[in-house]
Amino acid sequence: MNGKQQIGWGLIGASTIAREFMVDAIRAQAGHEVVAVMSSSAERARQFAAENRIAAAFDSLEALLADPAVQVVYVSTTNELHRAQVLAAARAGKHVLCEKPLALSVSDALDMVRACDAAGVVLATNHHLRNAATHRKLRELVRAGAIGRPLFARVFHAVYLPPHLQGWRLDKPAAGGGVILDITVHDIDTLRFILDAEPVEAVGMSQAAAMAKQGLEDGAMSVVRFDNGVLAQLHDAFTVRHAGTGIEIHGESGSLIGRDVMTQRPIGEIVLRREGGEERIALQHEGLYERGVASFGVAIGGGGEPAATGRDGVRSLAAAIAVAEACRSGSAVRIPDLPL
Amino acid sequence: MNGKQQIGWGLIGASTIAREFMVDAIRAQAGHEVVAVMSSSAERARQFAAENRIAAAFDSLEALLADPAVQVVYVSTTNELHRAQVLAAARAGKHVLCEKPLALSVSDALDMVRACDAAGVVLATNHHLRNAATHRKLRELVRAGAIGRPLFARVFHAVYLPPHLQGWRLDKPAAGGGVILDITVHDIDTLRFILDAEPVEAVGMSQAAAMAKQGLEDGAMSVVRFDNGVLAQLHDAFTVRHAGTGIEIHGESGSLIGRDVMTQRPIGEIVLRREGGEERIALQHEGLYERGVASFGVAIGGGGEPAATGRDGVRSLAAAIAVAEACRSGSAVRIPDLPL
Repeated sequence: MNGKQQIGWGLIGASTIAREFMVDAIRAQAGHEVVAVMSSSAERARQFAAENRIAAAFDSLEALLADPAVQVVYVSTTNELHRAQVLAAARAGKHVLCEKPLALSVSDALDMVRACDAAGVVLATNHHLRNAATHRKLRELVRAGAIGRPLFARVFHAVYLPPHLQGWRLDKPAAGGGVILDITVHDIDTLRFILDAEPVEAVGMSQAAAMAKQGLEDGAMSVVRFDNGVLAQLHDAFTVRHAGTGIEIHGESGSLIGRDVMTQRPIGEIVLRREGGEERIALQHEGLYERGVASFGVAIGGGGEPAATGRDGVRSLAAAIAVAEACRSGSAVRIPDLPL
Repeated sequence: MNGKQQIGWGLIGASTIAREFMVDAIRAQAGHEVVAVMSSSAERARQFAAENRIAAAFDSLEALLADPAVQVVYVSTTNELHRAQVLAAARAGKHVLCEKPLALSVSDALDMVRACDAAGVVLATNHHLRNAATHRKLRELVRAGAIGRPLFARVFHAVYLPPHLQGWRLDKPAAGGGVILDITVHDIDTLRFILDAEPVEAVGMSQAAAMAKQGLEDGAMSVVRFDNGVLAQLHDAFTVRHAGTGIEIHGESGSLIGRDVMTQRPIGEIVLRREGGEERIALQHEGLYERGVASFGVAIGGGGEPAATGRDGVRSLAAAIAVAEACRSGSAVRIPDLPL
């Protein structure tokens, strides 16, 4: 592939995130175009295609994968569908950018990684937060020793699920609903990225206060230990309107405070506090999804790894599943060292 | 007792907190005076008495309790000594203000409550934070429905243990060292006060990163469920220099954010965020220990309960012990419904 050849994207799932973020993010890349969309509802596919000026609309995965204009796919169906769709895409030789959580179980997610490896296609996970200027700067500062040895992290990701998203996330356990698979998985991926460390153990408690049904949770507080000794506390919720979001990394000689950073938008600020005072860190914000698609474009051209690989998706999922299991069981859950 | 009669205080323990806060707090009350101090070291007692203009210095508890000028005692020895000293004070008919944690076990603390009840003396616990204008205002606002139904709380109490306090807290398990019995117990008492609810279950993880020895912890992150459904996350540490302190209560319709409020000093601010914006709440700061001693003075005069009763001390201790046990075992620990 070279920069002049068009890269055609097929959207598997006519989703809200595809409409709100990904179509624009793909079109922001030179040479990339959204050429097809597939939904299990033909009407929904046609409507999405018309509203977003997409050439082809399909109601079957096979038809989309058979379209010669499609070289890569973006998967944003509900989570229980990811595995089969990614396996089919890999068999068809398509590179895959898949929404998180990658799957509903670690073994399904491992199947996806292996299938893409075997097919020689790139698998990336759409953990957008790694692409934020804020989180990239936090990683850079931690690695540079700005706060000394990191000891603790805090992630504040308790938000209000907007009415147009109050669907399967709240009442479909089989689709991977609940705040832990939806949000905690992002927190963990972001901490893995910033700390350059892997989670090893989780405890937590969940809550079904207002919205969630069928045994799902709409709030969770958890503690995760990383293999560099850092303890992280996470607070995730669908039910809280005015908490704001944030992330903090506290080290032996300083603290990094990120405000309004657990978000899809290129906003937020970072403050570094240490001996001598507080400093606001300069940031150059850019679109998170745009940057994710750009890194994916480079990866499919053989130029490196995407921002979050399939392996990242598996590892972050494994930790989120451990948090969910810890909340259910009341016991600390070890996060397996995966064969990756 | 009436306002004209002098109330003589005996200090059991020539401690840092007695010197830095309590002597002044007692003398700030009309009619209250510090009349005696006891330390197991006669030299330390004499020196403390001289430096603080206290009439009598003793090196035995019996001698202090036999001093007719002593009507009430303030106990701030290391924690393993509290039980025997409080039982002796009760037998001698002295009212007792005791430092937290009340004791090292719930059964010891219950003994202390029962002994004081039987002797007809007041037992109060020196949980100073209930006396802060910030926390009293938070309680008032939560009760008034300012944030709707409370769903979550966060307590940030990760600080740096000053060098002059880097003693038994870091290496004496038998004295009740470690950050959980020292700080987490305050967080829980403060949440009990603000939420007007009781903790029922705890999970957590601890860390010995830098200072703590002998199996003690110098950092802990925990999650506590309250009987009104609120989940609270606590972060306590001796090892963090620049995190600041704070408390947050998040409800269905608003959030209360307290900054610089987990402290011995009358400082800090509260912000209320809800539909329509953010409002800084007006506060009238007053000395926390002064107010605690004042409420104790009223209580021993028969005018009501002290800010934190002996029962509060037992309940907050029971929850802190549950957090410690949860950190050790990895399993959720139920907090017993105590026979109080």
